[in-house]
Amino acid sequence: MKLIIGNKNYSSWSLRGWLMLAKNGLEFEVVQLPLFTKRFYEELSEISPALKVPVLIDQIQDGQIKSAQDTVIWDSLAICEYINEQYLSGSAWPQTIQDRAKARSIAAEMHSGFSALRNEMPMNCRAKRTLALSELALKDIARIDQIWSEQMSLNTNKIDGDGWLFGKWSIADCMFAPVVFRFVTYGVKVSPSAEQYMQRALASTEMQQWLADALTETDIVEEDEAGMPL
Amino acid sequence: MKLIIGNKNYSSWSLRGWLMLAKNGLEFEVVQLPLFTKRFYEELSEISPALKVPVLIDQIQDGQIKSAQDTVIWDSLAICEYINEQYLSGSAWPQTIQDRAKARSIAAEMHSGFSALRNEMPMNCRAKRTLALSELALKDIARIDQIWSEQMSLNTNKIDGDGWLFGKWSIADCMFAPVVFRFVTYGVKVSPSAEQYMQRALASTEMQQWLADALTETDIVEEDEAGMPL
Repeated sequence: MKLIIGNKNYSSWSLRGWLMLAKNGLEFEVVQLPLFTKRFYEELSEISPALKVPVLIDQIQDGQIKSAQDTVIWDSLAICEYINEQYLSGSAWPQTIQDRAKARSIAAEMHSGFSALRNEMPMNCRAKRTLALSELALKDIARIDQIWSEQMSLNTNKIDGDGWLFGKWSIADCMFAPVVFRFVTYGVKVSPSAEQYMQRALASTEMQQWLADALTETDIVEEDEAGMPL
Repeated sequence: MKLIIGNKNYSSWSLRGWLMLAKNGLEFEVVQLPLFTKRFYEELSEISPALKVPVLIDQIQDGQIKSAQDTVIWDSLAICEYINEQYLSGSAWPQTIQDRAKARSIAAEMHSGFSALRNEMPMNCRAKRTLALSELALKDIARIDQIWSEQMSLNTNKIDGDGWLFGKWSIADCMFAPVVFRFVTYGVKVSPSAEQYMQRALASTEMQQWLADALTETDIVEEDEAGMPL
């Protein structure tokens, strides 16, 4: 499998696709295209007309990046569902019907929503910033805090829990990973149980690896440089 | 099952949840809450803290709208995946791995994207309007045209095709249904094969039923009244 991603420092959607593969121990090659450059659009247009990262290409043949037999998936939630179905026998969603339905609702809410948060607080892993937020962005933060703390309060009752939103790591955690980095960058204060979740996510090997890689990058994407340095 | 929706005239997300149930012949009760009213927020806050429609409530007990045993799903794509898994044995996605991966990519692209189109062209089934669109909205329209016409060109080769994006109706069609109504309202011109898809969708029993219901509604949601009457 080949995963096409943008800059690790900035590309929140790329992080989701990458985490889904890395966290589940799958073998894959990473192709990195610097966001919004000429090369980014040129190479991507050959592969995915949506012109967005991440893109997963499965069943690579003949060493070419794309062939007629390839399966090309160009959205992070679709990549998660594909990997879950093809390689993980469904284990990346919670196993009870009710938890799975809730996890899918939470993941989809993140996937389509929180536009104020997204716009005002771009992912920028290596930065520490201060920022004046709109009322809508503050509402987004409050809702995320609510989701995280509710799940953490439920998890305390689970014997096999591992500190993730549904005990074991799931696609729901994958979807919220970029928000964790955002909250660190912009010093967002959340309730104690939500903070506990953030620390759990930040401490994971994969998040640490992504962060370490992001710190080595030097490209600047101006439109994602929000806020004032602390 | 109980499906909570907003005004049929305006609520594009509600249409998706409703179509998924109606198109697949499932029995369900509809609870309609007029969008953005005091009642909307009061009743919804009891059921789903995301405060968005549609909401699907499954396993109703004791005639109450919510009990501890209910499964509550509050996003249209999550509702589609849930219904597909619980009631349809997976038949609402295309059956080959490659088509399913593509359908999920397209559905997810619609789910999280096209914000200019969404903002500038609110669903308003009963209206016929003229509208000056931004460059970004025109790009969104072009991309949708590309998706529809590419799929229609592939479908011509399918023996069991029924005129939908992947031959048989799928969740991908569910996700694009509100766009079809939008394009009619604002007189958007698309390429011939995309137009053929639009006509196929519009002619379906369920779309006709939704439209007929929308036409009987009289509430006005000011923020969704874009453009000048023709």
